[in-house]
Amino acid sequence: MADVKHSKGITAGKPLHCKAAIAREAGQPLVIEEVIVAPPKAHEVRIKVICSSLCHTDITIWKLKDFPGCYPRIFGHEAVGIVESVGEEVDEVVEGDYVLPVLIADCGDCKDCKSSESNLCSKLPVKISPWMPREDSSRFTDLNGETLFHFAFVSSFSQYTVVDVAHLTKIDPSIPPNRACLLSCGVSTGIGAAWRAANVKPGSTVAIFGIGAIGLGVAEGARLSGAARIIAVDIKPEKFEFGKKFGVTDFINPNTSEDNKTVSQGWGKTIVLGLDNKLDAQLSFLSMDVLLSGKTIKGSVFGDLKPKSDVPILVKRYLDKEIRLDDFVSHEIKLDEINKAFELLMEGKCLRCVIWMD
Amino acid sequence: MADVKHSKGITAGKPLHCKAAIAREAGQPLVIEEVIVAPPKAHEVRIKVICSSLCHTDITIWKLKDFPGCYPRIFGHEAVGIVESVGEEVDEVVEGDYVLPVLIADCGDCKDCKSSESNLCSKLPVKISPWMPREDSSRFTDLNGETLFHFAFVSSFSQYTVVDVAHLTKIDPSIPPNRACLLSCGVSTGIGAAWRAANVKPGSTVAIFGIGAIGLGVAEGARLSGAARIIAVDIKPEKFEFGKKFGVTDFINPNTSEDNKTVSQGWGKTIVLGLDNKLDAQLSFLSMDVLLSGKTIKGSVFGDLKPKSDVPILVKRYLDKEIRLDDFVSHEIKLDEINKAFELLMEGKCLRCVIWMD
Repeated sequence: MADVKHSKGITAGKPLHCKAAIAREAGQPLVIEEVIVAPPKAHEVRIKVICSSLCHTDITIWKLKDFPGCYPRIFGHEAVGIVESVGEEVDEVVEGDYVLPVLIADCGDCKDCKSSESNLCSKLPVKISPWMPREDSSRFTDLNGETLFHFAFVSSFSQYTVVDVAHLTKIDPSIPPNRACLLSCGVSTGIGAAWRAANVKPGSTVAIFGIGAIGLGVAEGARLSGAARIIAVDIKPEKFEFGKKFGVTDFINPNTSEDNKTVSQGWGKTIVLGLDNKLDAQLSFLSMDVLLSGKTIKGSVFGDLKPKSDVPILVKRYLDKEIRLDDFVSHEIKLDEINKAFELLMEGKCLRCVIWMD
Repeated sequence: MADVKHSKGITAGKPLHCKAAIAREAGQPLVIEEVIVAPPKAHEVRIKVICSSLCHTDITIWKLKDFPGCYPRIFGHEAVGIVESVGEEVDEVVEGDYVLPVLIADCGDCKDCKSSESNLCSKLPVKISPWMPREDSSRFTDLNGETLFHFAFVSSFSQYTVVDVAHLTKIDPSIPPNRACLLSCGVSTGIGAAWRAANVKPGSTVAIFGIGAIGLGVAEGARLSGAARIIAVDIKPEKFEFGKKFGVTDFINPNTSEDNKTVSQGWGKTIVLGLDNKLDAQLSFLSMDVLLSGKTIKGSVFGDLKPKSDVPILVKRYLDKEIRLDDFVSHEIKLDEINKAFELLMEGKCLRCVIWMD
C-alpha cells in the first residue's frame, strides 16, 4: 500500500514548493532543484508523485536539441501518486486517491473514447507536447521565475506535478507504488500489445523484436494469452537472461543467427510500439510483399489499452498473482541519484529503475 | 443461366483442341491460335470457359519482359466455366458443374484454410507462377509442340483450361456467366476488402484510392456494410461518373483538390489491394506517424475472402438483388476481339470488359 502523507487540505489552491529533476540542456545530466508547482486549473489534478520509473521515451526526447526537445523541462511519465488537490470540474478523483497518470487521455466523452475500437482520444490527442493538454501553458516555474516545460502530460520527475484528469486513472491502493508505476507506460504497453492490439490466440507464436521492458511486457501478455512459442529477437545477448524469467522460449541474435523469423502469411500481425531512437525513421515494405502475404502492420500507443477501463484490470491481475511485475524492477534509487537511472538504461543494464521521490 | 454444351464424356481423358488468345511477347497484341489442352491430372479439372473478363493484373504482368513475365503465355484469370472432365482424386465437382476459378487456393485441409483468420492457403501458396500449382508443368501446347505458360493458376483466355480443384468453387447456375465471372477476382476483392478485410461498420467513412472495378467493388462492399460516407479518390475525373452508380458520396481529385482525407487515428485501417503497376513499388511510412496514429496497414489478397465459402454467399446476394454486378460490365466482346479489351482497360474507358469464349 502507498504509505505517503501530505498536509491535508492546507496546500490546496496555493503554489507549492518541492524538489524536481530538471533537464536544462539536451542530453546533459538532470539537475535537482526547488520548483514551484501552480495549483490545478479546471479539469486538472495536482498529485504528490510517490515514485516514477524511467522509460526509454524520456531518454529519446531528452537527447533532442530541437523540437520536440524543449528546455528547461521536467521529464518522467511512468509514475504513481496521491491526489493532493483538484481543480474545478473534477469529480472523478478526490484528495488522497491513489492515481496512475498515463500519457494518453481517456476523456470518456469523444467518439473514440466511447468506442471499443480505439484508445486514442480525439478530444485530447496524443502528441509530444511541452504543455498541459487543454492549453499551451505550464504549471512549473523555477525559483528565478522561468517556465519549466512539461513532458508527455505527466512530468513525474517532480515531487508534485499537475495532470489533466483525463490522463489519470484511480487504482486499487493495495498494489505497491514500485509495481503500480510500471503500469503507467512500458509494461502496460507490452502486455496490451499482445492482449489487445495483436489479440494473441492460444497456441500462437509471437516474435518480439527488442527485449526491453516493453518487449518483456509483450512476452508477459503473450504468456497470459496462451502463446505456445515466444521468440525474443535482440542484438544484445545479455538481454536473454531477462527473457528467461518471462517465459521466452526461443532466442535469436540477428547478428549471429541465420534463422529468419518472419510474420506468418495471411494472419500474421506486426505491431509497432514505442518511439524509434530516430524520430524520422521510416517503415518501408515492398508493396507486393505486403499484398501477397496478407500481412497486417499496426501502430499501437499504450498497447491499444484504454487507460481508465483497462489499467484497473491489469492491477487486479497483478494482485491476483496472474501478471508478474516484480521481475521488471531491476533497480531502485532516490530522486537525487536520477542520473544513475539514465546511465543504467542507456547501457542496457536495467529493465526498469524505480525512482522514489520522497 | 449458363447455356453451354460440350460433348458429354467423349473428350474426357484426351487432349482437346480449341482456340486461345496467346501472348507471344511482352506488351504485344495477343494472337488467336489453336492450342492443345492436356487432360487433367490428379486434383485437376478441365473446364470449358464460358466467358472471361479482363482484370488489370493481366495487363501488369503482360507488360513485363522479365520474370514473372514468361512467354508464350495464356493470360486471363477472371472467368466462369463448365466442368468438362475431372482428374483422379477429384470428388468435389463433376462434369457439367458450373464453376468459378480463383487465383488463390482453398485446399480446405491446411491450418490456414481451416482457420477463420486467413484466406491464404499454405499448402498451395499464392504466387505469380507460370505453371500449375502442384507441379512445375503446363497443360497447354501450341500446334508446333511448344509449351504455353499458365497465368495465376487459371489461364482463362482459352476455350478450355485446366485448373486445380483447390482453385475452383462450384456455384449456383442461376447467375448469368457475364455476372458470375466478375466474382472470380476484381469485384469480389473489392467487396471483400470492405466486408472482411476492413470489416467496415455501419456509419463509417470509407475512402477509396483508385476507382476501377476493385475500387467500385469496395464502394459496393462499403454500401452493403452500412458506410455513411464513401469517398472516391482518383486523378481521372471521368471515373467519377462510374462512382455515382455505386453510392459514392464524395469525390476528390488529388491533383486539383486541397482536401486531405486521411485515415482516422486509432481505428483507421488502410487495406492494400491489387498489384502495383511497378512490382518493386515500396510502401513507406514515417514510423512515428504509424505509431502515434495507431494506424493499421493490411495487405489483402482477394479481399480476405475464402473462395469456397464466401463466393457462394456473394452469388446468393447477387441473386437476392443485394449486390449490384450489372453496372460493372461496361463492354462485352468476342474472343477474336480480345485486344480491344486490353486497349479499353489501359485507356481507363472500361470497368469490366467481358470476353465471350464461344
